Amino acid sequence: MTLKTIEWKDNSVVMIDQTKLPNILEYATYTDFNQVADAIRTLVIRGAPAIGVSGAFGLALASLQSDAANKDELISYMENAKKILFETRPTAVNLGWGLNKIMEVANNGNTVDEIRKNVIDYAKKMADNDVKINMAMGKNGSELFDNDDTIMTHCNAGALATVGYGTALGVIRATKDSGKNVKVIATETRPIQQGSRLTAFELKHDGIDVSLIPDTAVGYSMANGLVDKIIVGADRILRTGHVYNKIGTYQVATMANQHKIPFYVAAPLSTFDMKSNPEDVIIEQRKGSEVTGIGDKKTAPDGIDVINPAFDMTPPELIDGIITEKGIAKAPFEESIKKLFQAN
Amino acid sequence: MTLKTIEWKDNSVVMIDQTKLPNILEYATYTDFNQVADAIRTLVIRGAPAIGVSGAFGLALASLQSDAANKDELISYMENAKKILFETRPTAVNLGWGLNKIMEVANNGNTVDEIRKNVIDYAKKMADNDVKINMAMGKNGSELFDNDDTIMTHCNAGALATVGYGTALGVIRATKDSGKNVKVIATETRPIQQGSRLTAFELKHDGIDVSLIPDTAVGYSMANGLVDKIIVGADRILRTGHVYNKIGTYQVATMANQHKIPFYVAAPLSTFDMKSNPEDVIIEQRKGSEVTGIGDKKTAPDGIDVINPAFDMTPPELIDGIITEKGIAKAPFEESIKKLFQAN
Repeated sequence: MTLKTIEWKDNSVVMIDQTKLPNILEYATYTDFNQVADAIRTLVIRGAPAIGVSGAFGLALASLQSDAANKDELISYMENAKKILFETRPTAVNLGWGLNKIMEVANNGNTVDEIRKNVIDYAKKMADNDVKINMAMGKNGSELFDNDDTIMTHCNAGALATVGYGTALGVIRATKDSGKNVKVIATETRPIQQGSRLTAFELKHDGIDVSLIPDTAVGYSMANGLVDKIIVGADRILRTGHVYNKIGTYQVATMANQHKIPFYVAAPLSTFDMKSNPEDVIIEQRKGSEVTGIGDKKTAPDGIDVINPAFDMTPPELIDGIITEKGIAKAPFEESIKKLFQAN
Repeated sequence: MTLKTIEWKDNSVVMIDQTKLPNILEYATYTDFNQVADAIRTLVIRGAPAIGVSGAFGLALASLQSDAANKDELISYMENAKKILFETRPTAVNLGWGLNKIMEVANNGNTVDEIRKNVIDYAKKMADNDVKINMAMGKNGSELFDNDDTIMTHCNAGALATVGYGTALGVIRATKDSGKNVKVIATETRPIQQGSRLTAFELKHDGIDVSLIPDTAVGYSMANGLVDKIIVGADRILRTGHVYNKIGTYQVATMANQHKIPFYVAAPLSTFDMKSNPEDVIIEQRKGSEVTGIGDKKTAPDGIDVINPAFDMTPPELIDGIITEKGIAKAPFEESIKKLFQAN
């Protein structure tokens, strides 16, 4: 009964409305690509893999909505829809990738009906593939975890960031599915609280034992023997094994190193950036109001400066393994990561 | 224009209503000890040194309120007031200490008028002493900081936790007062957000440059060269130099050590517990609702476990100096701390 974040059902797109979590689990059903664009824009759905598939499904809806009489008219309608969908989150690489893939499929078709069928089939395949990759990653990673482990995780690298199953939380699910007993400690993950709002919600939904801690209690939890292993997701991984992930990951990794607790990262090969060096990566700064208040509630005085980076960098020497759908990379990472891609 | 957290003025007690911060700076004036008891109970005032002086001022008010005809009647009235004041925060050691000191003074007097005068004078002296100790501590500590330093602090060890000037923030004030230019990075300090609500507020009030970060951005800030030195307060310090302070201090100290950034603690000698060993210290666990929501806003699902310790322990090997009103203790701490007490 894992959460299905997004799904194609009876010529419509069904997705969990994440803005209502953790209080209400509600599904929204869309038949118009403009509704999907709104959903991405207003964070009804988030998480790079989930957004990529949303874009593809949105274009599939557009192909059905169009009253085009021939291929050219349909392609022109879909190009316009693509533009509207892309502009919702222009910096999310997966969104552009999903949209381009679908346009490629559309351009390869001949008739309106054929294009519609191929586009829908391909978008559904993209969604299925995302879950398959996560399950393969989960199986690979589950071998690193033991019965009765308590596993700390940061942010939400779960079903709710993907089509389903999740990356880091997928590994935890696979470990449990393999018959091992696991408990999870989830960090709150300020300022956006993906840990309390999403991770605690989806683990509880799946019946996995989860305890929430404030981000300030990471060191305490490790120093008091409450944590056996750690697993997090990633937003970008370099060929050298440098991992960019949600702000706070670096200090979790440092504390783990201090306490000799294994620290793992789970991410599909599509997360690897084999070209950039650490000095090339620019970390996005988000608006200060995320830190000076929570929702409508103001918790800091007006007129102060705020430093609010979205991500931080964890160097390879703090990482015990990077779990992918093709296997686990270990130090020396550059060599080990290259091998995973060659096996691909 | 440093904030005066609590003050005796025209036979009444004036204090900042901290429940209204950071949005409104409002002073409450009390002439009845029961109002002071309510103020302590409802966190109008908080912070160990500030609460100790509140108790003393409350008893001074009681001595004025009583219509006792003789010493015995006055002592009996004050004993009852002491009981009511003490029960507001029974675990706060400074409160008991302040109340007992005043009862000692009262018992040494002979007439009602003499007792009233002595009690008020002594309570005012206690308040003045708190500020004097903080200023001495500030002067000692300021020598450790350089012009143009950016100093990170965690929680609120400021004017608002004391009668005025503060401990860790007192050192920052003294550094600035000595003519050096300083900037501060304040951590939010979840779950109670003393950093954003109080530290950012009082530094901004004093015209000290302050930037707020979420607790997850401690590692990022240090890794990106934004922090020159760190200073925090303490709730309890053992003779071995083990420091108990607000949850999250330990990981700030560990990250500082990782980046070779000096980490200092500022606390008066009254914070030292020369008897206990680390294994004797029990860390208070606070209610889970502090972490699962903020004010009325729920940010986590119902029915999950929460780990919410109030404090953590920073071992002496992560500390570069403990600043007191009598001087600075350095490694080896046991010896160095002993010397400070002998000089006392």
